[in-house]
Amino acid sequence: MTDPELNTPKPELDARINKFQAYIQDKNMDGVLILQKSDLFYFTGTIQDSWLYIPAEGLPVLMVKKSAARAQAESELDKIIPLKSSAQIPEILRLQGFKMPVSLGMELDVLPANLFFSYQKLFKNCEIADISHEIRMLRAVKSDYEINMIKKAAQLADLVLENVKELIWEGMQEVELAGLVESAARKLGHQGTARMRLWGSELFYGHLMAGPSAAVPSFLSSPTGGTGTCPAVAQGAGFNLVKSREPILVDYVFAFNGYMSDQTRIFSIGELPDELVNAHKAMLDVQEMLQKEAKPGVKAGELYNMAVERASELGYADNFMGSGSDRIRFVGHGLGIELDEYPFIAKGQELTLQKNMVIALEPKLIFPDKGVVGIENTHLVVENGLEQLTKFGDEIILV
Amino acid sequence: MTDPELNTPKPELDARINKFQAYIQDKNMDGVLILQKSDLFYFTGTIQDSWLYIPAEGLPVLMVKKSAARAQAESELDKIIPLKSSAQIPEILRLQGFKMPVSLGMELDVLPANLFFSYQKLFKNCEIADISHEIRMLRAVKSDYEINMIKKAAQLADLVLENVKELIWEGMQEVELAGLVESAARKLGHQGTARMRLWGSELFYGHLMAGPSAAVPSFLSSPTGGTGTCPAVAQGAGFNLVKSREPILVDYVFAFNGYMSDQTRIFSIGELPDELVNAHKAMLDVQEMLQKEAKPGVKAGELYNMAVERASELGYADNFMGSGSDRIRFVGHGLGIELDEYPFIAKGQELTLQKNMVIALEPKLIFPDKGVVGIENTHLVVENGLEQLTKFGDEIILV
Repeated sequence: MTDPELNTPKPELDARINKFQAYIQDKNMDGVLILQKSDLFYFTGTIQDSWLYIPAEGLPVLMVKKSAARAQAESELDKIIPLKSSAQIPEILRLQGFKMPVSLGMELDVLPANLFFSYQKLFKNCEIADISHEIRMLRAVKSDYEINMIKKAAQLADLVLENVKELIWEGMQEVELAGLVESAARKLGHQGTARMRLWGSELFYGHLMAGPSAAVPSFLSSPTGGTGTCPAVAQGAGFNLVKSREPILVDYVFAFNGYMSDQTRIFSIGELPDELVNAHKAMLDVQEMLQKEAKPGVKAGELYNMAVERASELGYADNFMGSGSDRIRFVGHGLGIELDEYPFIAKGQELTLQKNMVIALEPKLIFPDKGVVGIENTHLVVENGLEQLTKFGDEIILV
Repeated sequence: MTDPELNTPKPELDARINKFQAYIQDKNMDGVLILQKSDLFYFTGTIQDSWLYIPAEGLPVLMVKKSAARAQAESELDKIIPLKSSAQIPEILRLQGFKMPVSLGMELDVLPANLFFSYQKLFKNCEIADISHEIRMLRAVKSDYEINMIKKAAQLADLVLENVKELIWEGMQEVELAGLVESAARKLGHQGTARMRLWGSELFYGHLMAGPSAAVPSFLSSPTGGTGTCPAVAQGAGFNLVKSREPILVDYVFAFNGYMSDQTRIFSIGELPDELVNAHKAMLDVQEMLQKEAKPGVKAGELYNMAVERASELGYADNFMGSGSDRIRFVGHGLGIELDEYPFIAKGQELTLQKNMVIALEPKLIFPDKGVVGIENTHLVVENGLEQLTKFGDEIILV
């Protein structure tokens, strides 16, 4: 097993479940059944093959198929019960003294349809409704424990960036550089897997691309895409060669003990053309404005509008966050256990920033034939503004 | 974009769609709407954010949100149409001359429930039914093109293993060794992402663990687990130190242009104790038996039974494919675009092997306090047996 020091502490789990029970009561549900890995990790501290029942009131029950022993070691919850099949869930709940739920919350944003049907059969005369928005609202505001984990991830991300300059040489393939940077991250304890919630979204470490290939758009809701090695992944590093005087984009996630930071820096072998240097400075200007304006009470959508407006004033309307029809309408996103957590700093978003949300802000300019410049940092929303958690210098790093 | 040489050839796509249309007609469906990345890649050659409509008869239509330009470059399909929202799908189908489907197939094994509800609203008076089993049956039998891709992945996997011996030293952390092996794989063009279909299943390269930590069970349907770096990933390499005379398990996938091979080898710094050397030999014996018995017409479940029986005869009943309640009931699996394709060489499986299926066979022994020994190779089912595709020597490799 992993070091018990890495277990999510019991008071932390208790506080999360207590807060969530207020949401369950608000929705007049009898309970919620949690299955998805990120949510399981959040509420139990383990991702073993299991089902967590959180009643509107009372202690939650974690029912584990594989591995029960491991779930016992990793989760500080009181009630952990082995089972062989999900068919046993109603009986276990009965034995635990719960009445059969008439209204049950599940994660219908991620739960596959066939599984939804099977739970409808399992819980007869029970209405199963979506509870994912409430889970995401709860998870958007981080505890001190979570903030410390994200700070740790951010520190490790900074350490990875310290290594990058020495790993770059002219003529290497993007994918070779990616492998070296990833190897450095693994040595520092990067967990590998970077979780995203939206179905069909995925990310392998992040985006590391050089020159024009960084500007190749992809399926992902991201300003950058990258060729990737093949159409089957269609993003990130590919076989393109690293050349001098082209921006080398390193937009990598560091994932530590379940929590992520997200950070982008631009490297260059020799000075970039003035046009790109100026464009990079413009994005630092947009970042500075966002860092000043973002505070509790500000609507996420307003922040996005301000970013677009400033980018336009600076003369970059056509290249901000993408180019042409592949432009995306956001400038940042919440993150934590998943990379696409609330709030989305995106067009039309009404959600207001709250203290202890964690957001990545990533103003970027995409020049289809030249590449990508810009910045990304992970921030904590504090009482009257933002605290920047990723701290590696924002300027273009000359190799 | 990626090299057009990597595009799935048009005759290949046409053949897949033609075969699938026979399934659609068999099910009396008007058409099928494909959304999942692996299936999109299989039928179109691209994973851009898109919807593929395959009518029971006639040409399929790929409707693309992001990036339409990229889908055009990557897919050899004839009809590729940009759209802004899935709400436009019925209208596009109408304009393409299709009648509105009354019976529509979708991938209900993976499609989230909320999306299922939204497609029910979009296609009024239409019954949406699951077509995932038929997709998986089709994909289980590989074309010559696919077999060549998997052979290429297997060759690259062999090359990665050539590197491993030089990367191991006593006292390093598993995760450091993992990073070095992964870096070598990336340099050879490993795509990164390794896809699995079953919801909640995931894998980051594979399992690389040393000594007892290889025997730590996990949530995955896999004989091995590993501590991982933390409970949030709970599998694979962790911070455990590599020691001499303990089996170092390297069970890694190589993913090339969408297709995977899967292979396991055991390394050791100095000779392993006789007990483990003999156990490893026993698994080579089980492999040899399986390689002899596996051929078109044999039931997958029978192969599994034979493996269990042979392992028992050899005296390893208690450690075969896991230990105690965390034992898994399979000895192999189909693979291709996903790592958990049909057929499952598992208890009770009635599916028979067919020519051109690709299967990984992985007889392993799990000794909780000592580690894991055994073997895994990727095989092609041929006319009268198996052709082994991963070819690195099966013996324990001394470092």
